[in-house]
Amino acid sequence: MLQKHTDREYENELATLRERVLLMGAAVEQTTGFALDAFERCDLELAQRAIDNDDRIDQLEVEIDRLCLRILALRQPVASDLRFITMSLKVVTDLERGGDLAVNVGERVVELGMFPRTAAHDLICRMGSLAQGMLRDALDAFVTGDVLKAELVMDRDNTVDSLYEQLFPTLGTLMRLNPDHVESATRLQSIGKYVERLADHATNIAELVIFMVRGQDVRHRLDAAQVARR
Amino acid sequence: MLQKHTDREYENELATLRERVLLMGAAVEQTTGFALDAFERCDLELAQRAIDNDDRIDQLEVEIDRLCLRILALRQPVASDLRFITMSLKVVTDLERGGDLAVNVGERVVELGMFPRTAAHDLICRMGSLAQGMLRDALDAFVTGDVLKAELVMDRDNTVDSLYEQLFPTLGTLMRLNPDHVESATRLQSIGKYVERLADHATNIAELVIFMVRGQDVRHRLDAAQVARR
Repeated sequence: MLQKHTDREYENELATLRERVLLMGAAVEQTTGFALDAFERCDLELAQRAIDNDDRIDQLEVEIDRLCLRILALRQPVASDLRFITMSLKVVTDLERGGDLAVNVGERVVELGMFPRTAAHDLICRMGSLAQGMLRDALDAFVTGDVLKAELVMDRDNTVDSLYEQLFPTLGTLMRLNPDHVESATRLQSIGKYVERLADHATNIAELVIFMVRGQDVRHRLDAAQVARR
Repeated sequence: MLQKHTDREYENELATLRERVLLMGAAVEQTTGFALDAFERCDLELAQRAIDNDDRIDQLEVEIDRLCLRILALRQPVASDLRFITMSLKVVTDLERGGDLAVNVGERVVELGMFPRTAAHDLICRMGSLAQGMLRDALDAFVTGDVLKAELVMDRDNTVDSLYEQLFPTLGTLMRLNPDHVESATRLQSIGKYVERLADHATNIAELVIFMVRGQDVRHRLDAAQVARR
């Protein structure tokens, strides 16, 4: 790795940044775990624990942003260090919003209360399990610079999307057969959407990893492919 | 404004960055305008124009990110310039996702086709008009560093949220009274959610403005207030 600055203080700052990003990632993973387990087991106490994690995640975002700006201002990093720091600025945004979505899942679980399990539950649980794995691997890929792992994360997003597409007709049938379930079905739809967006944030992080390591932008690769098909 | 580098080339780069961010903002505003007008007038051709704008927005994001990294690497900016450049890195993420949401609105409008107007339409149009104004003002505030304007954007988000909350019971009633409308109501709910998130992205940009100008982080101000109420 190219490095202009090699003094110990600078290395320590970079190590601290890496450690803080990991800590924030772990907090988001934990929150996501709480929220999805709460949904699966209808555990309102666990849902509340997800909701309570929000402030800690928010604090870490602010802290990491400040740290990035301090290093940029004082150390004038270049090459891979510069990319790591600027991508950290973007990664924390995805992490924070991922945390918000996990909190939103927790809130909807609390509102749903003791709702009977339906086919929609199983779909959402499968989406949730995929999204959790994607988030964990995307973060791993970010701190280790593992492009292959990042690419595997991106591939899995399609599976989440196709499960999410199945959710609509499933909930539609539920509502048509039992109009009393409209309110609950609306909440289930929101939970599905939150989980789908969680997977999107993991995908965003994976894309940033590839840019960070290769300097190659893959964010709009799919859009280009879509254009080609038109 | 404090500036370490005053050479003309550096000034030109900053001016180009500002101009590109404005251009991207204008493209997102236009896309949002197309999508919301398409929804209001049930104009499928206009909806398609919103969808077609996506690639241009994506290209601008990639271009601006590269420009930011180049200025950071070659010019080692400090103080307000450093904050402007790093916040630009974050603002383009919000703009790109705002653009995606406008495209999503366009896609749902195409799927809805000639659906009769309901009370939900009026709610969504009011939300859309607010979100558009917020986006325009947030961008304005970003390029001029206008903190007051940014604060006014943040205040308006509450109005959008409360309109969005009214959307759920409105759609619920629609679905219960007419189960044939379940599918369309689901699409209307998605459109409402997209518009609500568009306003969130405008709010995110406004919060970044305040950090950029004052160095003061207001992103999690509301969360702190919520904690206090618990």
